[in-house]
Amino acid sequence: MKKVGVAILGLGVVGGGTYKILTEHREFYRNTQNVDIEVICVLESNASRVEEVGVPKEIVASNVFEVVSNPDVNIVVECIGGISDAKGYVLDALNAGKTVVTSNKELFCKFSHELERAAKRTNVGLYFEASCVGGVPIIRTLLDGVQSNRISSIQGIINGTTNYILTRMAKDGMSYEDALAEAKKLGYAEADPSADVEGFDAAYKLSILSSLAFHTKVPFAKVFREGISGVTREDIANGSELGYTLKLLAVGKETDHGIEVRVHPTFVKKNHPLAGVDGSFNAVYLTGDSVGEVMLYGRGAGELPTGSAIVSDIIYAATHDGNRYSTFKNNATAEKDVRFVSDFESAYYLRLTVTDRAGALAKITALFAKNNISIVELLQKSCDEECATVVLVTHTTHEEAVKAAVSRIDSTELAKVESVIRVLS
Amino acid sequence: MKKVGVAILGLGVVGGGTYKILTEHREFYRNTQNVDIEVICVLESNASRVEEVGVPKEIVASNVFEVVSNPDVNIVVECIGGISDAKGYVLDALNAGKTVVTSNKELFCKFSHELERAAKRTNVGLYFEASCVGGVPIIRTLLDGVQSNRISSIQGIINGTTNYILTRMAKDGMSYEDALAEAKKLGYAEADPSADVEGFDAAYKLSILSSLAFHTKVPFAKVFREGISGVTREDIANGSELGYTLKLLAVGKETDHGIEVRVHPTFVKKNHPLAGVDGSFNAVYLTGDSVGEVMLYGRGAGELPTGSAIVSDIIYAATHDGNRYSTFKNNATAEKDVRFVSDFESAYYLRLTVTDRAGALAKITALFAKNNISIVELLQKSCDEECATVVLVTHTTHEEAVKAAVSRIDSTELAKVESVIRVLS
Repeated sequence: MKKVGVAILGLGVVGGGTYKILTEHREFYRNTQNVDIEVICVLESNASRVEEVGVPKEIVASNVFEVVSNPDVNIVVECIGGISDAKGYVLDALNAGKTVVTSNKELFCKFSHELERAAKRTNVGLYFEASCVGGVPIIRTLLDGVQSNRISSIQGIINGTTNYILTRMAKDGMSYEDALAEAKKLGYAEADPSADVEGFDAAYKLSILSSLAFHTKVPFAKVFREGISGVTREDIANGSELGYTLKLLAVGKETDHGIEVRVHPTFVKKNHPLAGVDGSFNAVYLTGDSVGEVMLYGRGAGELPTGSAIVSDIIYAATHDGNRYSTFKNNATAEKDVRFVSDFESAYYLRLTVTDRAGALAKITALFAKNNISIVELLQKSCDEECATVVLVTHTTHEEAVKAAVSRIDSTELAKVESVIRVLS
Repeated sequence: MKKVGVAILGLGVVGGGTYKILTEHREFYRNTQNVDIEVICVLESNASRVEEVGVPKEIVASNVFEVVSNPDVNIVVECIGGISDAKGYVLDALNAGKTVVTSNKELFCKFSHELERAAKRTNVGLYFEASCVGGVPIIRTLLDGVQSNRISSIQGIINGTTNYILTRMAKDGMSYEDALAEAKKLGYAEADPSADVEGFDAAYKLSILSSLAFHTKVPFAKVFREGISGVTREDIANGSELGYTLKLLAVGKETDHGIEVRVHPTFVKKNHPLAGVDGSFNAVYLTGDSVGEVMLYGRGAGELPTGSAIVSDIIYAATHDGNRYSTFKNNATAEKDVRFVSDFESAYYLRLTVTDRAGALAKITALFAKNNISIVELLQKSCDEECATVVLVTHTTHEEAVKAAVSRIDSTELAKVESVIRVLS
């Protein structure tokens, strides 16, 4: 039976989960996968964490050189996160001829070209299933399950923290601040939650997934990004009344105009399969030219789900001889002829405060018409004597047209646009 | 660039779709997969179908020997279906050293051991993604996406015909007969619909999926099977009132008592992700010990979705050197120590006609209690002067206990059990 030695860098949530899965399932993998996978080395400076996870002290390395120079290590698992240490360690491992499995979305998003070049040089594998959507095998699906398709769109709920917050706001009427505080208490959000709530985490993942789906590097810098910190209960309730659920959606599309990639709060029709993806669950909804619509749903984060993805990559690396290191063609940027679309098409939800109801509303709707924006639905809600709240949903239009209309409306002083939320159309 | 010659046996719906995808995407696969895949041979005796699909006459073979003896054919795609011709042709291809890709669930379910042994002998690949759930990459996911997990359960809506019929009955109040007639007209059901409506098709697929999930051969003969031909609008409506949607569910479980595999109409709570899988869509809901719940959703049948699965297998075979032919350990039956459970646990919905309402109902509920069946919910619905319709849902109990209770109730002549439907608990 083939023996495979694994080193784990970093015993945080994901590294700890990976260690537990590998040790508890060792006999199971011998029986079902015909491979003997042993964790023979761990890099973690926090001794109490080492003890907590149950790692024997004698396999704790004192530095990365000890790990990558160990001839019995075949696969290095990187669970450190961030760029500073992780990038150098991963390059060290690849340069030393070790296959690397990583859960690091920021690293892979920003430096996949460097990592892939290094992997190619030493002819080793580089696997990153765990970087996107936890235990959901979306990378494997893009590479080996729907690779027969031209993918025209990816729509994903790919950040658990924000989905938890939005679900609590929608289902239990919590404020953003209260839902965020609860998410922190439950360990779903970090002390500084900005990577999640401002959409950075989802944007890293969307960059990786779109690069695979569209067969060109989609750089992080091209991802339009708007977080959920400005979302109000009022807009969630209005959307619900109109038949929508609010999600932080990551959208990647390839159209005749080019590639568009964006992360922003989005109203999704309640009967859309993505609308039912609640709490810390995640999902990715793909459209391919042959397969049609496919959705993958599961836990997007957590010790064991993300560990599951890492260990699936380890088994894949151990049982497949070929390596797939050239997925993004080793580029930092897209090829020159690839266009990116920033003035994307979408439907829109707008909430306005309108003064002097009757006459003003006519002028406001005329302004929309002037910008070629047609309105599908309009709700008037009373506010106080002087002003009314008006909620409307547009037909599909352009981002720039909406921006122009909003700025013209605000300049009339007849109305103020309180919020603009894109609607999945 | 690697060149790969493909032969397609059978130009039916799936074979035709495969031909179209391969020819339309040839340049795309050269660019994205670095492989040149050409259909160089087709076996189809119906000349007008050959013309309809657009296959040049000069690549139509006159017999299977011509196909398998062609040295330029690397991969043989079997889209004939059934056993009679298909089995011999697939064995011929494997014995001639050709990798085989098949969409044939019945063949793979019943004879995987023979096919795998042949593939192993000549060291070629054997791929069968298209045999289960059309374009949804469930086989790839079980083999390479969640293989790090002990899978405890699979729950699937894996037959499009029955799901279409049940959806029409539930959403539009159609009778079973009318919905079936419509499904036939739309090409969703065959002239003889029994393979679909009596659950054979789902049982073949469940046998394949469970064998992969539980790492032992789960023979077709072990699958408990009940179709949808006895389903009534009345039961669908009653279930809906109680918060359930009716689906033909395929359930595979591995518990401490053994493996259970069953296909039957099942009430699913409306908030379960499977409840929203409507029309011809399919889905598989898995539970793994690390990943937790994962669901894959998409089109379970059709020319292009199933063709997508076949072509994904072809690309996989063409770009991965290792072969996976030994998934079921080449056995016709499970290992001796594997137990199968027929007296499975489930909750139950029952509809009864009860005479002489007051006293009778007390006796009936006492009979349930005697069989250790406790009732969660009970609805009394008036019928006429002499009898009432009673609908009830039980707590989790055993199949045998329910059978015993039903037979005792029927023998009292106080009531008649009109229908028994299992409830997903």
